[in-house]
Amino acid sequence: MVSSKLKLDDVMDLVVNAIESIKISGTPAELYEPIDYILSLGGKRLRPALVCLSCDMFGGDLPSSLHAAKGIEVFHNFSLVHDDIMDNAYLRRGKMTIHEKWNNNVAILSGDAMLIKAYDFVLQGNYQNLNQILTIFNRAAIEVCEGQQLDMNYETQAEVSVGEYINMIKLKTSVLLGAALKIGALIGEASDENAELVYDFGVNMGVGFQLMDDYLDAFGDPEKFGKKVGGDIISNKKTFLFIKALELDKDGVVDSWLSKEIFDEVEKVEAIKGVYINTGVDQLCIAEMNKYYDTALLKLDQITVDNSSKKALRDFSEYIRKRVR
Amino acid sequence: MVSSKLKLDDVMDLVVNAIESIKISGTPAELYEPIDYILSLGGKRLRPALVCLSCDMFGGDLPSSLHAAKGIEVFHNFSLVHDDIMDNAYLRRGKMTIHEKWNNNVAILSGDAMLIKAYDFVLQGNYQNLNQILTIFNRAAIEVCEGQQLDMNYETQAEVSVGEYINMIKLKTSVLLGAALKIGALIGEASDENAELVYDFGVNMGVGFQLMDDYLDAFGDPEKFGKKVGGDIISNKKTFLFIKALELDKDGVVDSWLSKEIFDEVEKVEAIKGVYINTGVDQLCIAEMNKYYDTALLKLDQITVDNSSKKALRDFSEYIRKRVR
Repeated sequence: MVSSKLKLDDVMDLVVNAIESIKISGTPAELYEPIDYILSLGGKRLRPALVCLSCDMFGGDLPSSLHAAKGIEVFHNFSLVHDDIMDNAYLRRGKMTIHEKWNNNVAILSGDAMLIKAYDFVLQGNYQNLNQILTIFNRAAIEVCEGQQLDMNYETQAEVSVGEYINMIKLKTSVLLGAALKIGALIGEASDENAELVYDFGVNMGVGFQLMDDYLDAFGDPEKFGKKVGGDIISNKKTFLFIKALELDKDGVVDSWLSKEIFDEVEKVEAIKGVYINTGVDQLCIAEMNKYYDTALLKLDQITVDNSSKKALRDFSEYIRKRVR
Repeated sequence: MVSSKLKLDDVMDLVVNAIESIKISGTPAELYEPIDYILSLGGKRLRPALVCLSCDMFGGDLPSSLHAAKGIEVFHNFSLVHDDIMDNAYLRRGKMTIHEKWNNNVAILSGDAMLIKAYDFVLQGNYQNLNQILTIFNRAAIEVCEGQQLDMNYETQAEVSVGEYINMIKLKTSVLLGAALKIGALIGEASDENAELVYDFGVNMGVGFQLMDDYLDAFGDPEKFGKKVGGDIISNKKTFLFIKALELDKDGVVDSWLSKEIFDEVEKVEAIKGVYINTGVDQLCIAEMNKYYDTALLKLDQITVDNSSKKALRDFSEYIRKRVR
């Protein structure tokens, strides 16, 4: 076991620089300009960081892991481009989405090109265990599609259980975090058991991350959250908070707002947040989130590398978790 | 060199059976049913056949090449699903397109899943030279996207040259035929020179194939062609025939039809076909096509395997070429 690994901040800097140096160019411009555009909009670069942090934890070669990290980030951005068409989203990271700035066809096709380019970046790593790496990549990729389809299905499905919801966010968000970590582990030549543990760490952290995202959508500081607060409430999105509130709200307040087609947005957000607080659903959400974060850390604990090597990933999960306050 | 290879018909049977046995299932049904639907609509399975024929020509293991063949066919069908959204097409192989039968979102997402699954099939081949195979696959895949974008651009671009048109069909159609053959060659452990020659054979055959498709769109037997004859003429598609006719038509007949927004379709098709014949553009198209087919066969001749091994691929190119009569 190798100790004295890189610090979280150092890895984040390396990753952010690597992603920002990506230049995918070519002709026709209509295909390539949108790719550069979406990649230049920033983002936290969490997924590529996980590839590198995991590889580094297992004593692997960090520069080598940057290729797969780029692949994961380009894949993630592909999924955002296509999701934004499907969700009819106008903004992404505060800027116009590709289908709004250009058109749907450009967004479909440049998204397709990004998905193909994602594999290209992985190939550039010249990995010995390429088949294994791509098998994990593909499993997560297809699960992300399944999660997106379930998310769309749940918009019109009358009843969604907490179990169904958790499964959906696991597929749509968490498995890619797990896969990023597992791919980093494989590049770092981790044992199968350790690779599985770091995957589980990522998936559990991912569920916690998404539950917090849902919580912040209602209770976050608008300044810090970076999105419109209450968006999920306005659109009746069946989040953990919403599903539990519908279950526990004896006064039928949630139900009465559900049937309204014309309403004051601020009034609705305040009313539903009131239900969330009165029924204790806000605290249930935090407890659920903590449950997943605790499981994640338990998985990290079980990985058989020395404790100091785990520091950066532990710091990472703390960094993600502390967003709530 | 190994001789006495499989016959064209035998390989075609094997390939058609392999493709028809593909079963991609899972939940949610909205993601997977469209994939099964599009793959069940048939098609000539030319691209997967090329993988296997090339592999067999070089003495490679044909069953092993079937995995990559499936990947190529699933990729091709992915591109059809997304192209059909972009082109607003109602029918594909005489049946409703996915976006018509379901909706645009289902077509985008199930297409994405097919692109991912295409890589999965290639991975199942457990190829020694996976990186090299996927690099070729990816180059063709991205070029297919470039070709589709150019095709869309040319709809509104005032002037398109013959050179631009040939480049577009090369990207949109031919490079995938070349890549299919080159991947088969790599699985069959061909030399770099032979792999390049079989790629060039495919690209040239592909251009010939597309030029014939354009010719048949105007002059084909509606019974045999399987598409509405004159579709390109009605939509003012800038094909080889159209571009050359616009150049050679001194009477301005083509120009006069271009400006009409309301017209009798049969009348327009007959008028433009008349120009094609009067200007000799129909014969120019056949000559151009033959030029590409001849180049293709020249490339096949240069491949350093014994002549009898080339029979199936030579028969294949004859089979493709004879569609014109």
